[in-house]
Amino acid sequence: MAKPIYFDYAAATPVAPTVLQAMQPYFDELFYNPSALYLPAQGVARDLLAARSRVAHWLGARPAEIIFTAGATEANNLAIHGVMQAHPEANIVVSAIEHESVLAVAEQYNCRLAPVTDQGIIDLDRIAKLIDDNTVLVSVMYANNEIGTIQPIREISALVTKVRQARRVTGNKQPLYLHTDAAQAANYLDLHAARLGVDLMSINGGKIYGPKQSGALYVKGGVILEPLLRGGGQERGLRSGTENVAACIGLATALDEAQSSRHDETKRLQELQDDLCKKLQEVVPELAINGSRKQRLPNNVHVTIPGKDNERLLILLEERGILAAAGSACSASNEEPSHVLRAIGLSDDDAQASLRFTLGRPTTAADVVALTQAVKEVCTQ
Amino acid sequence: MAKPIYFDYAAATPVAPTVLQAMQPYFDELFYNPSALYLPAQGVARDLLAARSRVAHWLGARPAEIIFTAGATEANNLAIHGVMQAHPEANIVVSAIEHESVLAVAEQYNCRLAPVTDQGIIDLDRIAKLIDDNTVLVSVMYANNEIGTIQPIREISALVTKVRQARRVTGNKQPLYLHTDAAQAANYLDLHAARLGVDLMSINGGKIYGPKQSGALYVKGGVILEPLLRGGGQERGLRSGTENVAACIGLATALDEAQSSRHDETKRLQELQDDLCKKLQEVVPELAINGSRKQRLPNNVHVTIPGKDNERLLILLEERGILAAAGSACSASNEEPSHVLRAIGLSDDDAQASLRFTLGRPTTAADVVALTQAVKEVCTQ
Repeated sequence: MAKPIYFDYAAATPVAPTVLQAMQPYFDELFYNPSALYLPAQGVARDLLAARSRVAHWLGARPAEIIFTAGATEANNLAIHGVMQAHPEANIVVSAIEHESVLAVAEQYNCRLAPVTDQGIIDLDRIAKLIDDNTVLVSVMYANNEIGTIQPIREISALVTKVRQARRVTGNKQPLYLHTDAAQAANYLDLHAARLGVDLMSINGGKIYGPKQSGALYVKGGVILEPLLRGGGQERGLRSGTENVAACIGLATALDEAQSSRHDETKRLQELQDDLCKKLQEVVPELAINGSRKQRLPNNVHVTIPGKDNERLLILLEERGILAAAGSACSASNEEPSHVLRAIGLSDDDAQASLRFTLGRPTTAADVVALTQAVKEVCTQ
Repeated sequence: MAKPIYFDYAAATPVAPTVLQAMQPYFDELFYNPSALYLPAQGVARDLLAARSRVAHWLGARPAEIIFTAGATEANNLAIHGVMQAHPEANIVVSAIEHESVLAVAEQYNCRLAPVTDQGIIDLDRIAKLIDDNTVLVSVMYANNEIGTIQPIREISALVTKVRQARRVTGNKQPLYLHTDAAQAANYLDLHAARLGVDLMSINGGKIYGPKQSGALYVKGGVILEPLLRGGGQERGLRSGTENVAACIGLATALDEAQSSRHDETKRLQELQDDLCKKLQEVVPELAINGSRKQRLPNNVHVTIPGKDNERLLILLEERGILAAAGSACSASNEEPSHVLRAIGLSDDDAQASLRFTLGRPTTAADVVALTQAVKEVCTQ
């Protein structure tokens, strides 16, 4: 059987050869603990700082504002838990379509869910009403992992700025921070924190052709967080543990590649995406595409095929050499219908008739043709 | 200049070639998210389970009792935070010479410090007195990262068992758990949880020739923990985040190698250790060796050279091609004298005149001779 065609790049990406090559020396030759004082270890510490600076560059940040973590789940946990532990009496507002690693942490605190439109875009009026005098943190993901919709972070930031200004007038000293989970965004979107107007941002190496469990949290200078992992005091005391040097180097290399090629890759994938949407609706006329077509990652096509069962479709597609997903991999083994699809108004039946196709660097026009053909076959069986 | 001779294996070990080789496929070819449902991803999930089973084997545990973490700092944080969050009204007893990743977490709760003798061994009578009706967790490290002393975990377990029995008699329903941080122990000591009598045990890949930020927490069936990282619900809900498959495979391979060679390697290193201690005291008669000589890791020699400044000695040693440490790498950049050396009764002056030499697989008799010669030179300058 031919090699299967992978349409699940939102779940995991292979480590790029250049990334793996950059990591290799740090497994053996340069294995030193960067906290040690001898020169070879200080050399490793310098390489780690260089990696931190490269990540900071793409975020328009200072190196000290980058906290390396083991992936975006930890970065999200640190952002939310960190702020809320420092302000236990305050409340947090998050979108209803956040990743589980934001939702599950936010739910530990006084948490309000901001709804999205049926296009999967945050409702700005509604979120504005949820922010009150006691809100300390707003967390809205940059791009959704299931339906690929891109949230208007700049507009949310403008909203947050207005609340801050109003608080200054009334003498309310409660800080208000904006966090965004950019795990799925980093391949295609601008990550410049000041342009976006965010105080905290999570990124994830495992979705941008870097190693799994590599990631970072951007923490704007002045934002006070409680650490999640305590101990040796690495990462400015915010994330203890001997630094995973190879993974940090890998993350920086992967981010360099993703961000420097993002315009070309976005253009290339948008064409494939348009083509795929058009072809899918040709072969299965009743197929609906979920989420905004305009404010959307270029690699995500999320569809509902009414009356079909997505688990059965996935098996039939796999028999035809197509690997795709019913939802996020994180919740794949969960029987509950997706909270994202519920939030955009899909019925449970339609949610269970939905499929996610996510494209990546290796995806070609021929792959799109093969996918369309396979979908046609399995839907007309 | 010749390649320096490394005597800081307690701070970091290089990844063994066999370990790196075992990890490689999981970076690219087998990059799939193990939570995905298609067969190639299920194959990766099976390999992850096999790695979990191999780790479980050496701990005498069931695979479901192994929670993969990003290193021992996270495992220690999860153990202590996890138990204490589930029992916020209870207290915790830890030894005074725990790693910072135990101490700093324990200090967030109602915490009592159990002293050690001047030999660096836990005082069983004193720890017995600290455990009261409201103690839920006792945490004593298996082997100390600075002075290499091995703690009598079986005896502490017997103590804990007695308290449990007494609680049953009095109807006290408070559970009592025993955690041990085995980060430095896994190269040389038996890790069988039932033989040791522990309920929770942290292990660390980065100190046993596995990758940095690989690790695991053994959680005995029935022990209830609150998770530290919430989200997709991986690792039985105790540690969310896409699994670092390569690191888990690396940890399992490293543990296999360390545990299957531990008797031979212990014997080999004990001879080098004896030789090093003898030679050092010959060339610098005022030199004192810290910590029990009998209950001690075979790769640790920790010395005080009265009147000398350890930072200066380290620089002079490095000029002679010797890489060693003043204390743990985690606290190397910390100006405070080591809490471990204070706990065994060293004065601050003596603490600042102390050096740690830790041996590893590549260490030879010739290296020991070179080290002795270098120490002689720098002490008689």
